[in-house]
Amino acid sequence: MSSPSSLDELIDALRALPGVGPKSAQRIAYHLLQRDQRGAGRLARALGHALDVLRHCERCNTFAETAICQRCANPQRDSSLLCVVEMPADLAMMEQTHAYNGLYYVLMGRLSPLDGIGPRELKLDKLLARAADSAVREVILATNFTNEGEATAHMIAELLGARGVAVSRLSRGVPVGGELEHTDTGTIAQALVERRAV
Amino acid sequence: MSSPSSLDELIDALRALPGVGPKSAQRIAYHLLQRDQRGAGRLARALGHALDVLRHCERCNTFAETAICQRCANPQRDSSLLCVVEMPADLAMMEQTHAYNGLYYVLMGRLSPLDGIGPRELKLDKLLARAADSAVREVILATNFTNEGEATAHMIAELLGARGVAVSRLSRGVPVGGELEHTDTGTIAQALVERRAV
Ligand SMILES: [Zn+2]
Ligand SMILES: [Zn+2]
Repeated sequence: MSSPSSLDELIDALRALPGVGPKSAQRIAYHLLQRDQRGAGRLARALGHALDVLRHCERCNTFAETAICQRCANPQRDSSLLCVVEMPADLAMMEQTHAYNGLYYVLMGRLSPLDGIGPRELKLDKLLARAADSAVREVILATNFTNEGEATAHMIAELLGARGVAVSRLSRGVPVGGELEHTDTGTIAQALVERRAV
Repeated sequence: MSSPSSLDELIDALRALPGVGPKSAQRIAYHLLQRDQRGAGRLARALGHALDVLRHCERCNTFAETAICQRCANPQRDSSLLCVVEMPADLAMMEQTHAYNGLYYVLMGRLSPLDGIGPRELKLDKLLARAADSAVREVILATNFTNEGEATAHMIAELLGARGVAVSRLSRGVPVGGELEHTDTGTIAQALVERRAV
């Protein structure tokens, strides 16, 4: 179609965005170049800068600009508890509960055999090394309650259990404020199995 | 949530992408930083480069790296015909028909009062100046057959007609290969109104 090569290159490069095919890459390119050059310039700089400065915290594995992130370096946090989550967004949700003051380990993913993500790709050995820290008394598994998240929790529990580390898992059940009528039956069944004495 | 500022800035900057809210900006940032750093670097460079070198062709208004684009500079094209389209993607579709050898004018949008895009924002005066070129014998309106595209075609037809320029519009009707049973009734009705003698 004889369009300028810098435009073709941009459209092609936009396909690095998750879920973006050729048609929407084209639409995004036009939008950025035509309607939001300022936002586009800011995006190019922010992306380049983030790639330059971001790395993974040596202790919790989340994105950080320093070798050890602020949270891991904070002496106010309870270093005897280590909560394992899939992604930084999950860590943020845990923090928003204001119910947890321990430390974290962020997997940056989950086991997903279909996507070729096994224990090695998840770098579970890094988690095992972290959990071997003598300060750690309990590892709390807070991966998602999806099939992949459950499989991930199961594998980590086995690996840590074999090393004599105490492991727990967030409980499953009816959401706070949830009505049974509007809760799926699988959740209700699980809430029944995991019922607690009162 | 005490995440690194370069990550926050990237997530915020990603919202320049059309249709991307805070949640998906976060998801995209993680994907680029975690799963596709190479693609991310390429995107940052391609975007910066495109912003640097792309401009609008002085004649047809499409994206170009030179003052006059290759197509407009091609003496093999029929300069008596000027086809008006909304976007470069529409121009590409016209070219793919191999049924047109004239020149183009790309509006880079359409009239859209709800989005605050009127004749001034569309820079219709640039089109009027282009169509005033003595070589132009006919302006063919190939905006979309949506409400906005039709309104745009109507306004351009009025402006050019007042200046004595011959204006035509792509015909509406049943698609080639289309079966009446699977064609919407509005299209069939229009095909009836615009029926041609055989
Ligand atoms: Zn950390
Ligand atoms: Zn041109």
